[in-house]
Amino acid sequence: MKKLKIAVIGGGSSYTPELIEGFIKRWKELPISEIHLVDIEEGRDKLEIIGKLAERMMEKAGINCNINYNLDRREALTGADFVITQLRVGRLEARIKDERIPLSYGLIGQETNGAGGLFKAFRTIPVIFDIIKDIEKYCPDAWLVNFTNPAGIITEAVFRHTDFRKFVGLCNVPIGMHRGLADILKVDSESLEIDFAGLNHMVFGLNFYLDGEKINKRAIEALAGPDSHISMQNIMAEPWDPVFTKAMDVMVCPYLRYYYKSKDMLEKDLVKLAEGNVRAEEVKRLEESLFKLYKDPDLDEKPVELEQRGGAYYSDAACELINSIYNDKKTIMTVNTQNRGAIANIPYDSAVEISSLVTRSGVKPISMGNLPVQANGIVQELKSFEIMATDAAVSGDYGKAMLAMVMNPLVTSDDLAKKLLDEMLEAHKEYLPQFN
Amino acid sequence: MKKLKIAVIGGGSSYTPELIEGFIKRWKELPISEIHLVDIEEGRDKLEIIGKLAERMMEKAGINCNINYNLDRREALTGADFVITQLRVGRLEARIKDERIPLSYGLIGQETNGAGGLFKAFRTIPVIFDIIKDIEKYCPDAWLVNFTNPAGIITEAVFRHTDFRKFVGLCNVPIGMHRGLADILKVDSESLEIDFAGLNHMVFGLNFYLDGEKINKRAIEALAGPDSHISMQNIMAEPWDPVFTKAMDVMVCPYLRYYYKSKDMLEKDLVKLAEGNVRAEEVKRLEESLFKLYKDPDLDEKPVELEQRGGAYYSDAACELINSIYNDKKTIMTVNTQNRGAIANIPYDSAVEISSLVTRSGVKPISMGNLPVQANGIVQELKSFEIMATDAAVSGDYGKAMLAMVMNPLVTSDDLAKKLLDEMLEAHKEYLPQFN
Amino acid sequence: MKKLKIAVIGGGSSYTPELIEGFIKRWKELPISEIHLVDIEEGRDKLEIIGKLAERMMEKAGINCNINYNLDRREALTGADFVITQLRVGRLEARIKDERIPLSYGLIGQETNGAGGLFKAFRTIPVIFDIIKDIEKYCPDAWLVNFTNPAGIITEAVFRHTDFRKFVGLCNVPIGMHRGLADILKVDSESLEIDFAGLNHMVFGLNFYLDGEKINKRAIEALAGPDSHISMQNIMAEPWDPVFTKAMDVMVCPYLRYYYKSKDMLEKDLVKLAEGNVRAEEVKRLEESLFKLYKDPDLDEKPVELEQRGGAYYSDAACELINSIYNDKKTIMTVNTQNRGAIANIPYDSAVEISSLVTRSGVKPISMGNLPVQANGIVQELKSFEIMATDAAVSGDYGKAMLAMVMNPLVTSDDLAKKLLDEMLEAHKEYLPQFN
Amino acid sequence: MKKLKIAVIGGGSSYTPELIEGFIKRWKELPISEIHLVDIEEGRDKLEIIGKLAERMMEKAGINCNINYNLDRREALTGADFVITQLRVGRLEARIKDERIPLSYGLIGQETNGAGGLFKAFRTIPVIFDIIKDIEKYCPDAWLVNFTNPAGIITEAVFRHTDFRKFVGLCNVPIGMHRGLADILKVDSESLEIDFAGLNHMVFGLNFYLDGEKINKRAIEALAGPDSHISMQNIMAEPWDPVFTKAMDVMVCPYLRYYYKSKDMLEKDLVKLAEGNVRAEEVKRLEESLFKLYKDPDLDEKPVELEQRGGAYYSDAACELINSIYNDKKTIMTVNTQNRGAIANIPYDSAVEISSLVTRSGVKPISMGNLPVQANGIVQELKSFEIMATDAAVSGDYGKAMLAMVMNPLVTSDDLAKKLLDEMLEAHKEYLPQFN
Repeated sequence: MKKLKIAVIGGGSSYTPELIEGFIKRWKELPISEIHLVDIEEGRDKLEIIGKLAERMMEKAGINCNINYNLDRREALTGADFVITQLRVGRLEARIKDERIPLSYGLIGQETNGAGGLFKAFRTIPVIFDIIKDIEKYCPDAWLVNFTNPAGIITEAVFRHTDFRKFVGLCNVPIGMHRGLADILKVDSESLEIDFAGLNHMVFGLNFYLDGEKINKRAIEALAGPDSHISMQNIMAEPWDPVFTKAMDVMVCPYLRYYYKSKDMLEKDLVKLAEGNVRAEEVKRLEESLFKLYKDPDLDEKPVELEQRGGAYYSDAACELINSIYNDKKTIMTVNTQNRGAIANIPYDSAVEISSLVTRSGVKPISMGNLPVQANGIVQELKSFEIMATDAAVSGDYGKAMLAMVMNPLVTSDDLAKKLLDEMLEAHKEYLPQFN
Repeated sequence: MKKLKIAVIGGGSSYTPELIEGFIKRWKELPISEIHLVDIEEGRDKLEIIGKLAERMMEKAGINCNINYNLDRREALTGADFVITQLRVGRLEARIKDERIPLSYGLIGQETNGAGGLFKAFRTIPVIFDIIKDIEKYCPDAWLVNFTNPAGIITEAVFRHTDFRKFVGLCNVPIGMHRGLADILKVDSESLEIDFAGLNHMVFGLNFYLDGEKINKRAIEALAGPDSHISMQNIMAEPWDPVFTKAMDVMVCPYLRYYYKSKDMLEKDLVKLAEGNVRAEEVKRLEESLFKLYKDPDLDEKPVELEQRGGAYYSDAACELINSIYNDKKTIMTVNTQNRGAIANIPYDSAVEISSLVTRSGVKPISMGNLPVQANGIVQELKSFEIMATDAAVSGDYGKAMLAMVMNPLVTSDDLAKKLLDEMLEAHKEYLPQFN
Repeated sequence: MKKLKIAVIGGGSSYTPELIEGFIKRWKELPISEIHLVDIEEGRDKLEIIGKLAERMMEKAGINCNINYNLDRREALTGADFVITQLRVGRLEARIKDERIPLSYGLIGQETNGAGGLFKAFRTIPVIFDIIKDIEKYCPDAWLVNFTNPAGIITEAVFRHTDFRKFVGLCNVPIGMHRGLADILKVDSESLEIDFAGLNHMVFGLNFYLDGEKINKRAIEALAGPDSHISMQNIMAEPWDPVFTKAMDVMVCPYLRYYYKSKDMLEKDLVKLAEGNVRAEEVKRLEESLFKLYKDPDLDEKPVELEQRGGAYYSDAACELINSIYNDKKTIMTVNTQNRGAIANIPYDSAVEISSLVTRSGVKPISMGNLPVQANGIVQELKSFEIMATDAAVSGDYGKAMLAMVMNPLVTSDDLAKKLLDEMLEAHKEYLPQFN
Repeated sequence: MKKLKIAVIGGGSSYTPELIEGFIKRWKELPISEIHLVDIEEGRDKLEIIGKLAERMMEKAGINCNINYNLDRREALTGADFVITQLRVGRLEARIKDERIPLSYGLIGQETNGAGGLFKAFRTIPVIFDIIKDIEKYCPDAWLVNFTNPAGIITEAVFRHTDFRKFVGLCNVPIGMHRGLADILKVDSESLEIDFAGLNHMVFGLNFYLDGEKINKRAIEALAGPDSHISMQNIMAEPWDPVFTKAMDVMVCPYLRYYYKSKDMLEKDLVKLAEGNVRAEEVKRLEESLFKLYKDPDLDEKPVELEQRGGAYYSDAACELINSIYNDKKTIMTVNTQNRGAIANIPYDSAVEISSLVTRSGVKPISMGNLPVQANGIVQELKSFEIMATDAAVSGDYGKAMLAMVMNPLVTSDDLAKKLLDEMLEAHKEYLPQFN
């Protein structure tokens, strides 16, 4: 049986123990002989902590898997079957800027939404393209599984501006929505299925099945009910008005709050800004305490504290995706890939997030027809923004960057857009060679 | 030669003298034998003032045209060749509410944008549908030329929810953009052409021709230049950042300011709210002084003061449209009609505002291909809103009304949406039978 | 556990033993408590022979399943979970006419192609619509699984002209293509998958996977190789030119021969016509000998001779479809259903034949993108024909019937079309109430 | 006033006197100072005859226009404002082969249809591409007006495989249909308009207007009437069955006969083959006698005999097109250009033949919505063929050439296709460098 090699770029991430746990759980199906964690110089310390924890976890599980960790990306990639990218260009310091600078203009800045998401895309896309070039050189048959945010814009960039196709973008939001609905319905999540379609962080649940039986009415009523407080741990969990939920008649993504509750979201964020406690700062403290735990030489499993970090289900998503590709399992998963008509009213060649069969030869979206009108408008608006964002990120064109900024629904004026653009280009210039 | 009859519903409008002037100018081509101005009981006084002024204008022009004015819609329609609708359900009092109530929630309310535009649609669509039923009965061969705002949503409603097809929606914004660009370029407006495509109050100038020669680069540079202060008289004329204008690479509609300068627009409107001087209140005062002028038995032409009212070029638009239909002139005009692929990436059966040939048999849109990405997002978003707005207006469904409200980009929270919806449903309930 | 009832309309068909065998094989998964075979008066004798054979087959298998057979469709449907339609309006006599009359004009007539297929559609669609009305009355939750030819046009008719949606059209051609390619490649058919997309009897294999690995190049080369003589047993197995096969770069359906080898097909059919041995006549003799076998009270399993009948794999297709719906197995099967963008360049609301997930809640097509240009033309042509055929079949409009005839690529002249139409309308008039 | 230069490539064509006459008629609007007729060595004699006739025509008209004629294409193009291409690669000898070789296999071969049209495309596309390269070098601002057949495939090739966009394809078929219908209706052709949409030689009249009034019903009834014998002079004028004409509900192109009367057309052509009198042979004799007339030094106007040649209205089409571009007249003409959604159900980037505004900046198609189902099938089929034909013509790929041949509806078997392909590749090899 072929031995598998997994390369993890950004291996020093606090999420890595989830991945390791996920691979351990699937050991019988996924015979991994080597996991290579790679990171950059600035992440050397974290990488070592994670690497050792991973070794202890494997040892405890009684699994004979070679854990490598170093700074040599080429070595990591050589011979890899799957490459996982979970990197953060500019680390949390950059994310803090992504959140604080927009807020200082009275605008929401967030990891994937607003000006913050745009700049994360600007910083990340060139790095992903570099990694793709290395993959084509050192492991041309490998699949690239990307977790890095903003996952939708990155997928758009890869399909729009490269010829690389063994790419799958992954996000834990659909899984969170799925588990959340199962909880509300008080059913086993295994027995519930949802047809997902839309964009990353703007995905909609279109149909709902319990043991295969369509239960749309029941699901929507439950979502409109008093217990329907679904959200991601890292989004403030404002409930929707039940009239809205019923009229939408589809399940909405938590991130819709940034657009349809923008006033409330902004107000809460401004309080956090004043308290020096924007999400990135929270995460930073959380990570510090996580790494303290990880360092403990007696720790040999994923600590429960990791779940507060907000990345719940990443393990399931990534490991199951790899498992399903490797074993041609045809699991239905929600992934970011090229549309090609699967959502009929979204541009044919665009990236979408959609329920798909995961097979050895790639992901095959399930045809979803047209998005209903109540979802189509916001999806199209964000898709146009994403396309402009990738064009700006790849070309480094200032005018396109300005357009992307103005086209983002969370930016409320062209004047602010320009000031914000200039300040953020300056603040992140170290990571934005394309704009110099 | 066939004698023409024109019926003007909302004949007591302050705009009517523009129409009369327009018909006088085109007398030789358009042999109108009868103009029937009709209005409702509440507008009786205005109607009489306008009716008499119209008679004096005709007399001065030495034209033998029968001017009728009364409250009998059936009589007005019988035998009409063209029906012009320029009505305001609930009069300016309702418009004041459309503007003041949203502002009291910190949200832009406007005649065609935001919650105000939505409620104007809710009040107006049932009345337009009634008129259409009467047209089918009393003058089934007549064309309906609609000026009434929100012209785009009304066009959407007519094509989506009726079988009536002899309908053309008209707006003076494209004409204003055209004249404005001619001024900036310092060229005769006759020698300049623009390909317009988009939605009512969200239309874009895609291509520019001077004496038939394409001058896109020159036009965009002029628009980005220091003198490019184009705007409608009734929109605050905030200039765009030149970087934005150049990057857009198409000419934008003044109403885009509500979306891409929403912060600034809101701030100015809030000042006006505090001063008791929102646009509707301004207009009300303007109308009062206009009607004082109109009453003067010595006045026998359109007073120049009417131009401040904001409806410049309505005369050209409406009279030229009727002229072009009647004489099969194939003039290229920008009208609101059904898309049918003319803008390839907008839903096939939706209403659009687009450069079209105006012929005896109706308007034929010129094919414009796909809207560019920088225009497509906002257009799609507003189109989805418009579709939901018509569905709510026709069904009277509270949930759909709520959705339309939330989907409007100027409404920033579902909670506010609901409160606003409830207050406005109550405030306008006299005119919203479908919601009771 | 819920007990299942299956109703088989056209239960006296010679194919029924395949079905019975298929249910016996799946007994553990599909706990059928009752199979009700129903037929019309003219088929009473056959129905009895089949019914008794089915009883003997069940008895031999040691299965306690109630076999009913009578002429009462209402009784058969009442309480049914699945309804299988495998009927032949006008029996083989009508099919003989479908084949002989066109040939007498020098035109190919066939069960699903040419004028023959068109008239089979005309006769069958009204009967299927009647059955649907009965299903809505007597077993509104049942699924209708249709085998009856022309399966594509019937699916088009159901989706275009009724609101019934629990309908799946089935054909054994894709299965035959799949098994055929497995044979050529000398691989286990279980390990081979094909992405199918197109129309019934004009379906294309777009991608090929061996154990999940894409093997398009290998598959096409094998198809172009000397052993690639794939065909259905009931189509004359003319090999394709290897240059053609390679240039097509997709796997073609055997029925493409009627269009791209029409000259040769016609010549062979004309010989058969002269010999009194058109396919329907062959089938008739085959059926007679089959029923002789079936009558034998010692026969208690499906005789091997049935396979020569041409319906190989029907059992797999139908029973597996029902199994997959019942058990929500998400098997990937090629079915006839509504497109809704799954094939992006075929009309959105049309019937297509496409690889789909079969679930408890229905079939979900896998998104296939655009058909390649070499497949799109003929598919679009036949789709337009099919739409016109359903419009004619439902309306009974003579002009539309004439158009459908002329639009069929196998009819080579409008004059012949009219003569043929008139003769066939007369020949089949007993079964064509809509045209009277 | 700017002086205009017209370059005519294939200036020695027997059609040239039509062009000269057309320019003479429009002299006041179109101030041409130079017409440069250019041809190849093999056409030297004809070119001289035509050149001298053109001089005499100009002289008689009293017009001071410089007529040049020589073999120097570079000189002809330098400074040209319009380039007209009316060439025949391989001259009538090649056309004779295009017709006779397919007929020898029992297949229709024709200048634009069947294998003949395909090979004319193969020979002509490389030459047109060469001319485009020269235009880009010697007169980059010039418009290319192409008459050369197959005009649709050539337009497809130019838009699909080059970046040249100042290209308009022209055909006299729509004009012939328009005049024909005017005759049948007994109305002045000036007062009749038709909305044309489809492909070159497969165009449909969708709507009909008399003095601007829609008269679809009247037009279709007239077309189905006994006097409706419309046809091009060079197509055998077989009447359609009135039932067919009424059911089609659109006006069909004469060339539809090749597809919907293929049997009859083939039979007649086979008779002509036997008589040594295929259309190309007829034309050859016609041309010889025309050139005898042209030589006559007393002839100083277009002889009436030219009209029998079949190119009636070319003059109107080409000269009016140039006139409309030059003077930005916005005439509505039917031209071959890129679709871009103008016909909504035809591929976006394909060539179509469609009613368009002709302006100084190019042609703007009028949006026609979806083709009706009765036209869509055959149009899509031929469009797929045309795309494959251009791909074969440009790549010289034998497999694609074979596919194009098989995809052509007039080729009835893949075996014949291959034999025919091989024989024609050999017969024309001198003109098919891309296939060597």
